[in-house]
Amino acid sequence: MLIVMHHNASDKDIERVKKIIIDMGYKPVVIPGAERTAIGVIGNQGWVDDAPFRGIKGILEIIHVTKPYKLVSRDFHPHDTIIKLSDRIKIGGKSPFLVIAGPCAVESREQVFKTAQFLKKLGVKVIRGGAFKPRTSPHSFQGLREEGLKILYDVKKELDLLTITEVMSPEHIEMVEKHVDILQIGARNMQNFDLLKEVGKTKKPVVLKRGLSATIEEWLASAEYILLEGNPNVILCERGIRTFETATRNTSDLSVIPLVKSFTHLPIIFDPSHATGKKNLVPPMALASIIVGSHGVMIEVHPEPEHALSDGPQSLNFKEFEKLYLKINKLLTFMEEFE
Amino acid sequence: MLIVMHHNASDKDIERVKKIIIDMGYKPVVIPGAERTAIGVIGNQGWVDDAPFRGIKGILEIIHVTKPYKLVSRDFHPHDTIIKLSDRIKIGGKSPFLVIAGPCAVESREQVFKTAQFLKKLGVKVIRGGAFKPRTSPHSFQGLREEGLKILYDVKKELDLLTITEVMSPEHIEMVEKHVDILQIGARNMQNFDLLKEVGKTKKPVVLKRGLSATIEEWLASAEYILLEGNPNVILCERGIRTFETATRNTSDLSVIPLVKSFTHLPIIFDPSHATGKKNLVPPMALASIIVGSHGVMIEVHPEPEHALSDGPQSLNFKEFEKLYLKINKLLTFMEEFE
Amino acid sequence: MLIVMHHNASDKDIERVKKIIIDMGYKPVVIPGAERTAIGVIGNQGWVDDAPFRGIKGILEIIHVTKPYKLVSRDFHPHDTIIKLSDRIKIGGKSPFLVIAGPCAVESREQVFKTAQFLKKLGVKVIRGGAFKPRTSPHSFQGLREEGLKILYDVKKELDLLTITEVMSPEHIEMVEKHVDILQIGARNMQNFDLLKEVGKTKKPVVLKRGLSATIEEWLASAEYILLEGNPNVILCERGIRTFETATRNTSDLSVIPLVKSFTHLPIIFDPSHATGKKNLVPPMALASIIVGSHGVMIEVHPEPEHALSDGPQSLNFKEFEKLYLKINKLLTFMEEFE
Amino acid sequence: MLIVMHHNASDKDIERVKKIIIDMGYKPVVIPGAERTAIGVIGNQGWVDDAPFRGIKGILEIIHVTKPYKLVSRDFHPHDTIIKLSDRIKIGGKSPFLVIAGPCAVESREQVFKTAQFLKKLGVKVIRGGAFKPRTSPHSFQGLREEGLKILYDVKKELDLLTITEVMSPEHIEMVEKHVDILQIGARNMQNFDLLKEVGKTKKPVVLKRGLSATIEEWLASAEYILLEGNPNVILCERGIRTFETATRNTSDLSVIPLVKSFTHLPIIFDPSHATGKKNLVPPMALASIIVGSHGVMIEVHPEPEHALSDGPQSLNFKEFEKLYLKINKLLTFMEEFE
Repeated sequence: MLIVMHHNASDKDIERVKKIIIDMGYKPVVIPGAERTAIGVIGNQGWVDDAPFRGIKGILEIIHVTKPYKLVSRDFHPHDTIIKLSDRIKIGGKSPFLVIAGPCAVESREQVFKTAQFLKKLGVKVIRGGAFKPRTSPHSFQGLREEGLKILYDVKKELDLLTITEVMSPEHIEMVEKHVDILQIGARNMQNFDLLKEVGKTKKPVVLKRGLSATIEEWLASAEYILLEGNPNVILCERGIRTFETATRNTSDLSVIPLVKSFTHLPIIFDPSHATGKKNLVPPMALASIIVGSHGVMIEVHPEPEHALSDGPQSLNFKEFEKLYLKINKLLTFMEEFE
Repeated sequence: MLIVMHHNASDKDIERVKKIIIDMGYKPVVIPGAERTAIGVIGNQGWVDDAPFRGIKGILEIIHVTKPYKLVSRDFHPHDTIIKLSDRIKIGGKSPFLVIAGPCAVESREQVFKTAQFLKKLGVKVIRGGAFKPRTSPHSFQGLREEGLKILYDVKKELDLLTITEVMSPEHIEMVEKHVDILQIGARNMQNFDLLKEVGKTKKPVVLKRGLSATIEEWLASAEYILLEGNPNVILCERGIRTFETATRNTSDLSVIPLVKSFTHLPIIFDPSHATGKKNLVPPMALASIIVGSHGVMIEVHPEPEHALSDGPQSLNFKEFEKLYLKINKLLTFMEEFE
Repeated sequence: MLIVMHHNASDKDIERVKKIIIDMGYKPVVIPGAERTAIGVIGNQGWVDDAPFRGIKGILEIIHVTKPYKLVSRDFHPHDTIIKLSDRIKIGGKSPFLVIAGPCAVESREQVFKTAQFLKKLGVKVIRGGAFKPRTSPHSFQGLREEGLKILYDVKKELDLLTITEVMSPEHIEMVEKHVDILQIGARNMQNFDLLKEVGKTKKPVVLKRGLSATIEEWLASAEYILLEGNPNVILCERGIRTFETATRNTSDLSVIPLVKSFTHLPIIFDPSHATGKKNLVPPMALASIIVGSHGVMIEVHPEPEHALSDGPQSLNFKEFEKLYLKINKLLTFMEEFE
Repeated sequence: MLIVMHHNASDKDIERVKKIIIDMGYKPVVIPGAERTAIGVIGNQGWVDDAPFRGIKGILEIIHVTKPYKLVSRDFHPHDTIIKLSDRIKIGGKSPFLVIAGPCAVESREQVFKTAQFLKKLGVKVIRGGAFKPRTSPHSFQGLREEGLKILYDVKKELDLLTITEVMSPEHIEMVEKHVDILQIGARNMQNFDLLKEVGKTKKPVVLKRGLSATIEEWLASAEYILLEGNPNVILCERGIRTFETATRNTSDLSVIPLVKSFTHLPIIFDPSHATGKKNLVPPMALASIIVGSHGVMIEVHPEPEHALSDGPQSLNFKEFEKLYLKINKLLTFMEEFE
């Protein structure tokens, strides 16, 4: 940690800061400057809480050099984490690129089975579908909830597909865990810390979506909550952030993928459907995510997007998805010799 | 709702959209334009779900004229809501300006009682203090939790102050309700919809903070979740949003206060501590919020901000708060004759 | 300046950085940390260019402690700058609060004279009016240009009012200077560095608006361009920034005013018309800016806002402005004894 | 255009709006709704100025259906524009992908020639280099200006490369035009409308960078300024926008490329250097831009990035660029059969 003093901080102010550092068991190193003095804190074994320095006279700024996460950091765990989703399916490191697809929301048994059969035939291994739907307005469709979970369970049993669904509340975790294979934490819950702690107590793989206004650092600190409770199976999912631009649903910077991979050993996937909000932008962005090194994609597919109860405009129909899926495979083959 | 068609939408595309509108029980009104045609939907009694129109060929844009909330809207409830916090204390409408103050976090019995005695003596009626603390990093102080609630309960009993604390998880609501008078939903939980629904089932007043990246419309739609469950006692709290500017903790636009008051009948207060993150900016912004019509303020006060376990740099010490409190009262007196 | 090294930087990497610092004539101070080493640069007399460190192996981050401006900084010029606008009118320090008002655009001689006579009668000293209009679309009204400047000149002569107008291009400065008293640099031109340098060569007072996406630091660095060319008469003007919220035209944080006053000695005013974009939000925000310490306001007034060629929805009509002006004066009287 | 009336707008209010529409020569179409009435404006031949409706009693919102640009719109010019940069080199439509490379700033004859010889040998056709540098601080290197232009001219003559450089002020256009082949308008000048008009009067190709806080609509409206003056040779350049995330220099959403291509017939390229600000993120993003359909890339290359006078951390050295260039070509070959 570095403490930058005000231009006009007195010697007494500097001494006061040095004393606090010593009282905390660390060592102060004074760096005099032309305009202001800075004081380095050394001797710490990780994150230093800056609370004792806040409000102290003469301090201009407190700069953290250490990050607010440790277990998720590549500094402490240099090798890629590889997560076993089933006996045959893994994600992370050099594991095959993973395609997750399915409807935004579980709407009916027929809709899910129809989609699942289509996806299975194509070769997709994981189906998505929301049973609990976080919606801006309470007047919008809120999901089939427990009934939706049962449909996902039956799909999993009958068609031998892996399933993923969002969990919105700690009290639903137990029930969700019984019905599906992979838990999802949605963007709006990325800093629902009680929920993070509870999924951290399960052993299930967790897809942790980036929050609408979360920095990369905050996102990784949220993953740290899950790992700290004992669950190492976190898959990050980039889905864009909120900015002033409204031409797309979110603003999604794909350079985040290689950047995050340099910070953490966890796998990271991309959700082009929420990132763009427009079906015609989903294929190019899904393909581009392969180029930048994503470990997978999660794509919304619906038998009849025009009648979807949510996210219709960003869902592909079967024909569109099949076309994209073939392109994904063609590009993956090319990539094998590209590196 | 207005459906704007593409420049090159065919007559068949337009007919298809008209048919969907009729099938939904509404009436289409075609508005031909120089460059593109728009189709109005009329005959609806509220929010029209746009799902059936999504993905339909030829549609460029769907524009909602109706808002995603109804119960919180001034259109349907023109008069100010006045919330009874106790027999003597109310907020909203022309009720006296409400000052809520106290530490960011409940750290110890001594810290809370010391602050409470100071505040009571000054005339403050409501004390704040977090028992559950949402922190970016799991390595930071997480709050005293149940022990903190007990301290708040004792303060309430012994000093006859109203208390407010944040509730972060549905499973804690029952316990929190027993110990404090007012529930707070924090910025990070503004779209934790299960939590909103659960506090909607209580009768307690709820302070609903605006999310870091929430639009005003989303914020009001979150309040709608609480009202829809039967709890009309929602107090909105503006605390700034996240932007590219990092010189202050958040970016807080005070014009939001009169604007929100024109949209809704609910009371709205301002939190200058989180809005600015800097103690020297708290007094001017607290005072400015009075000018723009806020119903109250929530301010962080700590006996020793330099030793606070969280939010030290934005907490006022007793002397600073007293000075501000006197100014608030002086300005309120002036305001009585200003309008 | 502080250079933070990577977790796995080698001793050789650290030595390389130290050598560069020494070659630049400064002194390196090594601060070893638990996770990574930092190296302080000392001995500099101001801003250190970080170019030589960029791309050097082993460097994680470069942190500037010194600011990219000097002449505008309160560190080097602790006392408030007071700018003489005329023999009788000053701005800055403890000078009287300055109200600038007038139409967004100069539309006709009649419109400007009508407004000017109204403002003069009320006691307003400075009239605004754009002759050159920066408009998003080339199909919108672009201003009367030279003809508009002549109207402003005549108003100034006949009514003895000070005038302010925007200058958009270096080649117009000479002409604008001859016709008006105060030059304005618009938000979109805040980083039009050639324009800044040219107005820096005049002696006229310059109102420098904050850019839509400019940090406070960049804004002050832009002011530095003007001062560095020899013109110390810069008045900063906060007008809000662009964010994801579209309910108001811009997002304007009034805490910027006391914050900027702590960084610089230059005067700062507030533009509630552009900040909000809505006429009913202009009065509360104009008044609130007084509370936070603004040196003045710039407000759009139009004889018939409904027929304004630009910015109609944010312009006050005469009656609305008069009501606000009386309130401003009443609040200013109160403020004299408030501090 | 659609005018949405307030919930409580009276019949008189509605009649007033209808009258204004009729007075403007258009036709009003009333669309009654459950909560509020909307009034469509029909009969217009393009953009309708909303000025006459602003401030009119009873109006809640004005919604434009027509865009603020026309010449750049694909609606009016459905076929891709192909721009001739020289007898042999074109950009746009199905023309070969264009790689522009070179240093951020022209620093010396030696630096530019060394880079140019390297690029020419590789097969790159266009070299970039800034003679005029827009820098946040006036204390940073401002470019070699006229001397830099001469160096670019000599490179062009001696090595037969096309050259591109930024023009920052209308008064420099004539000089810049004589020395280089392609003019660049930088992000900070995207709404420097006088500059846009002046480059619109030349016949040179113009690369128009997107502004830091510009919407796609504003960017296209800026291009309209150039086309309207008679210069149809505009190449758009996406380089990311400013958001709350500071881990990368800007936030760049590649979906903007296919989206913009659906709105306009103009070519669009991508600048991964400014988009990311980090050299290791440049290659993946440059390659990803090919996948999403970019017409080219502009990449910063420097013989010794560690000694660059500006943008060192985002510049590739020769070895890094060569590696990337080979990958670009390999991917382009793959793409020929991918569509």
